[in-house]
Amino acid sequence: MASFSTVSAVTPTGEGRFAADIHPAWTIAGKPNGGYLLGLLGRAAASVTPHPDPIAASAHYLRAPDPGPASISVEVLRAGRGASQVRARLLQDEAPCIEALVTLSSLDSEATPFWAAGAPSPGTEDRDDCVRLPETNPAGRPVPIMGQVDLRIERSTLGFAQGKPSGTGELRGWLALADDEPFDPVSLLYAVDAFPPATFEIEMTGWVPTLELTVYVRALPAPGPLRILQRASLIDAQRVDEACWVWDSTGRVVAHGTQLAGIRLG
Amino acid sequence: MASFSTVSAVTPTGEGRFAADIHPAWTIAGKPNGGYLLGLLGRAAASVTPHPDPIAASAHYLRAPDPGPASISVEVLRAGRGASQVRARLLQDEAPCIEALVTLSSLDSEATPFWAAGAPSPGTEDRDDCVRLPETNPAGRPVPIMGQVDLRIERSTLGFAQGKPSGTGELRGWLALADDEPFDPVSLLYAVDAFPPATFEIEMTGWVPTLELTVYVRALPAPGPLRILQRASLIDAQRVDEACWVWDSTGRVVAHGTQLAGIRLG
Repeated sequence: MASFSTVSAVTPTGEGRFAADIHPAWTIAGKPNGGYLLGLLGRAAASVTPHPDPIAASAHYLRAPDPGPASISVEVLRAGRGASQVRARLLQDEAPCIEALVTLSSLDSEATPFWAAGAPSPGTEDRDDCVRLPETNPAGRPVPIMGQVDLRIERSTLGFAQGKPSGTGELRGWLALADDEPFDPVSLLYAVDAFPPATFEIEMTGWVPTLELTVYVRALPAPGPLRILQRASLIDAQRVDEACWVWDSTGRVVAHGTQLAGIRLG
Repeated sequence: MASFSTVSAVTPTGEGRFAADIHPAWTIAGKPNGGYLLGLLGRAAASVTPHPDPIAASAHYLRAPDPGPASISVEVLRAGRGASQVRARLLQDEAPCIEALVTLSSLDSEATPFWAAGAPSPGTEDRDDCVRLPETNPAGRPVPIMGQVDLRIERSTLGFAQGKPSGTGELRGWLALADDEPFDPVSLLYAVDAFPPATFEIEMTGWVPTLELTVYVRALPAPGPLRILQRASLIDAQRVDEACWVWDSTGRVVAHGTQLAGIRLG
C-alpha cells in the first residue's frame, strides 16, 4: 500500500505547472477517486501560497482522467494577508479533466469550536465492530482503492452489502490511511469523497460520477482514524446531492462536504 | 423596485466579455449580496452554452465589488451533450472580485423526484403570519435589498429581531421577488443566499462575508413564493458553514446551497 503523501505528490515543472502521477490502485472500476484528484490539486495550490491549508475547495469534473501521468496548472487569483485563492486545473494529454477553486488559509491548532450544535451526530459503533469494505463491491465491480485505505462501515448501515438497503440513504463508519498516516487538510479533501455513494443504502446502482464536489476543511485533524457520515439528500432528474461529515479522533468536526453526482435512478 | 431580470442583466461586449451594472439597492450596508452577484455570473454563463440552466455553481469571493459598472468574463471549459462547464469571473476596474465555476444542463420540466427523504422539513407557518424584514437590521445596519424583495421570517425563528436569539441557528421563512416575478434557475442562485446569516439566531454580529458559496439547482421552480430554510452548521476559527434549502410553491426542493463565511465570534 502506498501512502497518501506518495500517491498525491506533485512535482513543480515551472510556470505554475506540476507533474502528477495518478495511482492505478486509487480507483473504482478504473476511474480515479474524485476526492483523491482534488487532493492533488489542493497540494499543488498549497505549494504556491504562504497559506498551507485548503479551507474551501470546489471542483467541477469535466472528464475522468485515466491512471498515469497528468499535469496540474495553478494560478494565484489573490494573495491576501489571511487567505489566498487559487485556480487549479488537472489536465491529461492537454485535455482539461477537472477545474477547481481553492481558498487557503492557516488553520490555528489552538482554535476550539464556538458553536457546533448544527452538525449531525456521528455514528456510534466501535471501529472494531464495523465491517471493512473489500476490493469488490456488491455489484461485482472492482474497487482497488479499498486495498489502499481502511474503510469500515457500521453494520446498521450495511444493508446494501446483503442486497437489502435500509432505505435511509446514510452510511456511517470509519476511515484510516495505510500505516495510520495522519490526516491533514489535503488528505481531508479525499476523505470527504472516500465513502461509497450513500445511495447504495437506497438502491444499488453502477457508477455514480461526481459532477461537483465542495469541501470545507474546518480544523486541523488530530491523529487517528476519522469517523464519517455520508448522507444522500435528494435524487431528482438522475442526479443526487449528498453531504459528508468528517470527525477526527477527538470527536471534532474537521471537514464537511457536499457533492452533486449523476445516478441512473428515476 | 427593479425586477431581478433587470438588475441581473448582462450585455455581451465581445470575446466572452459582458458588461453588468451592480444595482445600489441590492446591497447590505453598501456590499452587494453575494448570491445576486453569482446570479450575474450564472446569467452570463448560460448565454454562451446550449444548456440554459445552471445546475451547480461554486463561487469563491476575492474582494467585494462596489455597486456600479462591472465586467464579466466567461470561458467555456467543456461543451458536452448533456452538460457544459463554464468558468466565470466578475471584475471591477480590472480587479478580480469573484471567480466561479458553473455546470449547466437543461432541466426537464417533466422530471419528478425519485427519492427526497434526505432533505430536512420546510417551515410550517403561513406566509401571511410571517414577519417581513425591514430595510434596517437589528444591529442598525442598512439592508436596502429588503426593499427590493419580499423576505419574511417565521415568528418562531425571529428571536434575533428582539435581541433574544433562540440559539437554534436556524431561520425559516419565505422569499418572493418584486411583482411576484417567477423564479428561474438563475434567480435561484440568489435565493440560496437571500436570507440573513442563520447565526443571527445564535448571536448578533456585524458583516458575515461569504468566502465560498455552492448552489445546486435541482429542479425548475413552479411560479410563486419560495420557502427557505437557512441553517448554521458549525462556528469554528471565526468561520461558519451554513446550508440553505429552497422549496417551490408545490413543496418540491428546487435548490440546495452551502456557504463558508467569516464571522467575528469565538
